Amino acid sequence: VASESPTLRLPTGMRDFAPRAAAERRRIAETLLGVFERWGFSRVITPAFEYEDVLALGLGTSGRAAAIRFVEPSSGQVVALRPDITPQIARLIATRFQEEPGPVRLCYEGTVVRLERGARGQRELIQAGVELARVAGPHGDAEVIALAAAALAATGLASPTIDLGHLGLAREVLGALELPPEATEEVRGRIAKRDGAGLESLLRGARGSKAAARFAALLPELSGPPSILQKAIKQAPSDGVRRALADLARIVAAVEQREIPARLHIDLGEVRGFDYYTGLRFQGYAEGAGQAVLGGGRYDDLLGRYGQPSPAVGFAVDVEVAAAALEAAHAAHAPVNGTLNGNGAAATNGASAVAGSVLVAGPASAALRHADELRSGGRRVAVDLVGLPPGALEAYARRWGFSEVIRVKNGKAGSEASGVRARKSRGA
Amino acid sequence: VASESPTLRLPTGMRDFAPRAAAERRRIAETLLGVFERWGFSRVITPAFEYEDVLALGLGTSGRAAAIRFVEPSSGQVVALRPDITPQIARLIATRFQEEPGPVRLCYEGTVVRLERGARGQRELIQAGVELARVAGPHGDAEVIALAAAALAATGLASPTIDLGHLGLAREVLGALELPPEATEEVRGRIAKRDGAGLESLLRGARGSKAAARFAALLPELSGPPSILQKAIKQAPSDGVRRALADLARIVAAVEQREIPARLHIDLGEVRGFDYYTGLRFQGYAEGAGQAVLGGGRYDDLLGRYGQPSPAVGFAVDVEVAAAALEAAHAAHAPVNGTLNGNGAAATNGASAVAGSVLVAGPASAALRHADELRSGGRRVAVDLVGLPPGALEAYARRWGFSEVIRVKNGKAGSEASGVRARKSRGA
Repeated sequence: VASESPTLRLPTGMRDFAPRAAAERRRIAETLLGVFERWGFSRVITPAFEYEDVLALGLGTSGRAAAIRFVEPSSGQVVALRPDITPQIARLIATRFQEEPGPVRLCYEGTVVRLERGARGQRELIQAGVELARVAGPHGDAEVIALAAAALAATGLASPTIDLGHLGLAREVLGALELPPEATEEVRGRIAKRDGAGLESLLRGARGSKAAARFAALLPELSGPPSILQKAIKQAPSDGVRRALADLARIVAAVEQREIPARLHIDLGEVRGFDYYTGLRFQGYAEGAGQAVLGGGRYDDLLGRYGQPSPAVGFAVDVEVAAAALEAAHAAHAPVNGTLNGNGAAATNGASAVAGSVLVAGPASAALRHADELRSGGRRVAVDLVGLPPGALEAYARRWGFSEVIRVKNGKAGSEASGVRARKSRGA
Repeated sequence: VASESPTLRLPTGMRDFAPRAAAERRRIAETLLGVFERWGFSRVITPAFEYEDVLALGLGTSGRAAAIRFVEPSSGQVVALRPDITPQIARLIATRFQEEPGPVRLCYEGTVVRLERGARGQRELIQAGVELARVAGPHGDAEVIALAAAALAATGLASPTIDLGHLGLAREVLGALELPPEATEEVRGRIAKRDGAGLESLLRGARGSKAAARFAALLPELSGPPSILQKAIKQAPSDGVRRALADLARIVAAVEQREIPARLHIDLGEVRGFDYYTGLRFQGYAEGAGQAVLGGGRYDDLLGRYGQPSPAVGFAVDVEVAAAALEAAHAAHAPVNGTLNGNGAAATNGASAVAGSVLVAGPASAALRHADELRSGGRRVAVDLVGLPPGALEAYARRWGFSEVIRVKNGKAGSEASGVRARKSRGA
């Protein structure tokens, strides 16, 4: 309804969140942080941009391509907006927690900006994530997978699935093919797209291990319940692949020791991701979301790039994807009439109705005093500052999520109780 | 203690916040947002950067000089990191709330980046603020001043002072001097620095109203309790100045009708600020902070620059200044021994000790199960994933803010109660 002037457009991938959408995103982010903190993770804050060469240490090739760079006016040096917070946390651990033997449990929430492939534009995302450093092996992996499941469940996402893959395995198999880098990238893409035919024709050009090529051809299909790991191990073309599969099997066993509110799914065809992953790679999916709600994995080389070799594992939730999944789930289960009250544009103005929130009208000093009293009881209260007429007052309350309108009729101190007439507003 | 490698430096004005500092900044920001929301303001989220020409509509000259600009890779257009969120909210109101008669009450929290004067570098700030649009006059001003006082008090800042000035008055007086723009800027600077002698020598060169020059010379001293407004009105050199002073007096009267947890101070020598202010300009100060903790004012022209003329007033808190003021106040009142426990570097690792938070050690499956139980009761719980020896376990708990260590001795299900030995860790 609100037609924006063309001159007031925003850059691609950048957007405003009006109250209802903003409140939902804040709710999701704060729920996630609450779970992370209940699991003993401590929150840190890192800057929006850094020197590009410092950030690039951790980002690797694909991460660097996702970073928006510009020249810092004061120094003439190249800086980059963070496309990912994990390398910043790695830098922080390597510099500020040098003497902490660990485990180091940190969490964060913040905005990142990523250039999309092909540079058609960028996307600003809100991320909330955790990093667990100085814990090697399956128990560390299982800890963050269990935390990922608990965090998704806490936001309200029903029956999430955690897909497990292994970047060590992918690297081992792709390396053994001995293809030139571009062809390797193409093989990676075909596997990820489950393009069996395209993959086989590419693999015919591989000069390397025939066993590796046969195994690579199977990867798009090696997707299913954890039991498929046994099948995969039988077909493993090398000790390196067997080790990676055994690692994954131990991680699954460690997770299955715990009761987690998510289903595990193995997907050995998931061979993409930031360059820094070394072992486990996982993604969380929820009903109603096409994209992964969260992504993470193990990156045992990342801290070393900042001078402090140390194992680490973590994940980040894409708050926008989580919000979209929750919205889709909500729409699917909402009554046919939906929640709009026939006043579509205006209804989107306000925050969602807040139970017990009050709009107070009447003579200024009495209304203000009554508002202060209600607020000190913890309620959300606004005063009608402009003297809205009766019908407009209720409509305003509906548009802005006030569940009640109170008219103070008598301005005298001490007479609030008798002077107040409480009245439920109809909608909101 | 942790000496950063020189190659891992951060750009000027950018910093990491380790757990203790991050927790305090989050506490402040969330406290502020909680108060804003209790006053009926709805939270919105705006993007980290925008097209420079769109942002510049609202920023004016000084705001534009504070914005870091760069070229958007996909379009070749110039974008700017927001140095201030207020123009974004003005754009949002003008485009998304066109049909809302108001009042529009919005609040926000976010990071802005500002180039410092002289381009020695930039500064990243966390801001939390409010905008109240479509309410003209003293009652709107009084509402946000009272909210500013309530918000500062809620963060724990003792006896804040709100300084009130008037940009309309400053503009009227400076304009009447008929000085060239650079000289006007210099007059503004001398007034703000209370440099009476420098100011008088500059004013001697003014070709305009002698009465205005006499009044301008008084401005550095027109600072004190609200009663000084009467003195100022007697000396007002023009109707415009009298109107501005009468406006300020009405705002003071409207604020004084309410009980606010702050002291009002008039400062007619406060003549700087973002170009968009038109009337009231105010700043909040707290013991222990050299800089203003918050700044705001009325900007009745700003929404018009986005095509929707409408009165508006608001303020933003600088979360970093608030944190510094609280730290200074805390240090001033802390016992001589302070809070460090002789283990300085390590003590700064963790979050502040969280009462009732637990580190659970023992056989993995029993420890994990016990942790889940404690967490479902809302407690902050981490599991010792690496098998720390006894002394190290307590030290780890102290460093990371766990107030209790629990050892699960018996892994059998159903025996948790007898198998658990609770023990307070000594420090943290």
